[in-house]
Amino acid sequence: MSRTRTGHIHLGAFMNAGPGGVGGWRHLDAELGWFSPAYYQKIGRILEAALFDFVFFADTVGIPRSFGNSIEDHVRYGVGAPRLDPIPVITLIAAATEKLGIGATVSTGFQQPYNVARSFASLDHLSGGRVGWNVVTSFQDAEALNFGNEKLPGRAERYDRANEFLEVTSKLWDSWGDGSLVLDKASGAFADPTRVHSIDHAGKHFQVQGPLSVPRGPQGRPVIIQAGSSVEGRDFAARWADVIFCSHESIESAIEFYADLKGRAVKHGRDPDHIKILPAVTPIVGRDRAEADRLKREFEELVPAEAGLARLSYHIDVDLSRYDLDKPLPPLEVKGVFGHFREALEVSAREGFTLRQLGRWYGARTEGNLVGAPVEIVDRMEQWFDRRAADGFMTIPTHAPGAFEQFTALVVPELQRRGLFRTAYEGATLRDNLGLPRPEARDLRRRAAG
Amino acid sequence: MSRTRTGHIHLGAFMNAGPGGVGGWRHLDAELGWFSPAYYQKIGRILEAALFDFVFFADTVGIPRSFGNSIEDHVRYGVGAPRLDPIPVITLIAAATEKLGIGATVSTGFQQPYNVARSFASLDHLSGGRVGWNVVTSFQDAEALNFGNEKLPGRAERYDRANEFLEVTSKLWDSWGDGSLVLDKASGAFADPTRVHSIDHAGKHFQVQGPLSVPRGPQGRPVIIQAGSSVEGRDFAARWADVIFCSHESIESAIEFYADLKGRAVKHGRDPDHIKILPAVTPIVGRDRAEADRLKREFEELVPAEAGLARLSYHIDVDLSRYDLDKPLPPLEVKGVFGHFREALEVSAREGFTLRQLGRWYGARTEGNLVGAPVEIVDRMEQWFDRRAADGFMTIPTHAPGAFEQFTALVVPELQRRGLFRTAYEGATLRDNLGLPRPEARDLRRRAAG
Repeated sequence: MSRTRTGHIHLGAFMNAGPGGVGGWRHLDAELGWFSPAYYQKIGRILEAALFDFVFFADTVGIPRSFGNSIEDHVRYGVGAPRLDPIPVITLIAAATEKLGIGATVSTGFQQPYNVARSFASLDHLSGGRVGWNVVTSFQDAEALNFGNEKLPGRAERYDRANEFLEVTSKLWDSWGDGSLVLDKASGAFADPTRVHSIDHAGKHFQVQGPLSVPRGPQGRPVIIQAGSSVEGRDFAARWADVIFCSHESIESAIEFYADLKGRAVKHGRDPDHIKILPAVTPIVGRDRAEADRLKREFEELVPAEAGLARLSYHIDVDLSRYDLDKPLPPLEVKGVFGHFREALEVSAREGFTLRQLGRWYGARTEGNLVGAPVEIVDRMEQWFDRRAADGFMTIPTHAPGAFEQFTALVVPELQRRGLFRTAYEGATLRDNLGLPRPEARDLRRRAAG
Repeated sequence: MSRTRTGHIHLGAFMNAGPGGVGGWRHLDAELGWFSPAYYQKIGRILEAALFDFVFFADTVGIPRSFGNSIEDHVRYGVGAPRLDPIPVITLIAAATEKLGIGATVSTGFQQPYNVARSFASLDHLSGGRVGWNVVTSFQDAEALNFGNEKLPGRAERYDRANEFLEVTSKLWDSWGDGSLVLDKASGAFADPTRVHSIDHAGKHFQVQGPLSVPRGPQGRPVIIQAGSSVEGRDFAARWADVIFCSHESIESAIEFYADLKGRAVKHGRDPDHIKILPAVTPIVGRDRAEADRLKREFEELVPAEAGLARLSYHIDVDLSRYDLDKPLPPLEVKGVFGHFREALEVSAREGFTLRQLGRWYGARTEGNLVGAPVEIVDRMEQWFDRRAADGFMTIPTHAPGAFEQFTALVVPELQRRGLFRTAYEGATLRDNLGLPRPEARDLRRRAAG
């Protein structure tokens, strides 16, 4: 118990509004309830009972077609599809919980900032200040094809749009000053028009007059979640993100990333403690090591090779269907691919995998090497926290809700025993529980009302 | 009891996710809960207990600025703002009810069809087949200003886009054939890729490859609600709408509209019984006539003249702030304005109103002349139903939830006593309860999977 760092970790849960990963839906304990509120609400209640900071939903707006330039294997194996709109999904979780944060992914590529600002401001009110927005810029041409374009813009252009998108939404969230509602039935004064302002944004990508038609929410602005690993992504995250989600195979790489991001945040004039860095983990928890290893092997058995390859093709945007399943993957130079996707190619070369083996390995790959008994898992989490590789963890379930039930029953109590995790929620809003201040509304009063 | 028509009426409830109308929020019984789930869920439960077909939410994506080219009086009086995103609002109502239909307004002007199709398909699943989409094309330049344009396109152009928008969403809703999900854990077969198809839409406004990332919902397609009164609007409604919402001061005008719309539907190859026409009504119900008249006068007292004029300016898109409050409105020629907005100008001229009187009259105006005791109100509803002026009514509350409580307690039992309204829900989905068939998915099999 050589804790070298005060405070406690934060825990987020990573979900899909549809089957996640590869093969997890085949688990005997997996529920197939993606189309019904009960599934999501049950998971929300499990996570809230365990005092998780939040649950958030990944998203894409299109079925991947990287593998064989076709949706076929993605549909056949349930890899990357279906995906329900995460906004109603997190609303249902809000209705079943009181403190748990709720986050949804919305891409800046295929929406207008006014609509997105309004959705999240509305949800911030309706959830009592619990909403987060996971900002993505999208990475698949299959998404662009649903919005009138053959291909996505390049990464620099996507982040340029994303930066301006966030500038607009941030102004819109400040367009009603705090306390602008009067609601005096006797006098008929509804709101104070001197505190409600147009934003008159005129930029390269967007022209938005405002104000938003929704007053400022309990959190002022929603919690911004972001996961970019590229240089552009890191800089965007350092500027805008409250929570950063990342993937690292080694603690050394995570420590480097952590220091880099906190340093970038300081350059943007921010307090580095106000950015929470949560590496992804996929815990497989047994009562002892042998049970955990058995659970891991059972999970691996669920993964068809083609399904794993479809997922890898989608992640690296390279069509692996053209190669022989029983031969090793030829050396590939994949431009602009970062993080664990690159690592997959390195592992394959090092281990001499055939493509079939690579598919099964990648499909069953877990994040953060958290396979073991609770004490082993918490040892590792504590090390990552103490060595400033992490402010907490983004927990990805192998299957749902079973993996969350195991983690919350076995790991959370051990985290609490060591003082590494809360024993009660600190506050009412997601910002409160993440230890983040509520942003002040910028003063837009120089603008005339109207 | 000279019923000349079998069947029963349908009842929809019209709401705003914010203060509705003018002054209603000042009513002593009005709840100011637009930012909390409890308000919406309470209303949903009241309407479901009374067996309403559905509740739906109007919407605009911008604060009106027609009055004085400013948001100022709209904010001061709470006229047309705030407006929360209706999608999370109806999701919360779905979570608190089991049979009530839930509808949200989304404009085809400022969204992409893929996103809209996905939201409603997701909600159709999550609500168990209870969702409706109120399709609007928007009518305020104040909305365009939040989306990069100074002005809206003309009406013909807006409906051209709306028609193609619905073509795309309808194809996307059919892109997963019914029964395409397999979900066989043992074999690993998730879905049947031969039943999931791209749509390859290439049109004037939209290019969308598809398929949608959400399988076909319980209703096949959401119930389409529409309220256009112009020639373009009527034709659009006859082609696409399941429910038509309209406003008529006289039964004669309503009968003409009803016959016109049903005739247009036949020309589009549709069964006229599969379009339900629901004129708007704003009931003010007393236990007797005197009480109803008193309630009406109390309601009128809540309306500031400027607030009523701001609302009228917004509805006719003419800035009335430039005229003297204490003089009559000069004759105006307002292009492209239909329905009760035109009637307001006619009444003003006929009655010799000053602008101040017009503002107070328009702000307190109720739809359908349903002020009275329950028997009087039901007499009138029965007459409209029997004479084929209406298949039912869209009920607008003077204040919420109070006006719904009065209507459901006093009027619904009288409707039921006369056999004019259901005594139990007929089915599980909104289509079931509206007596509408579930649309078959068009056969897209000629397209290759992928």
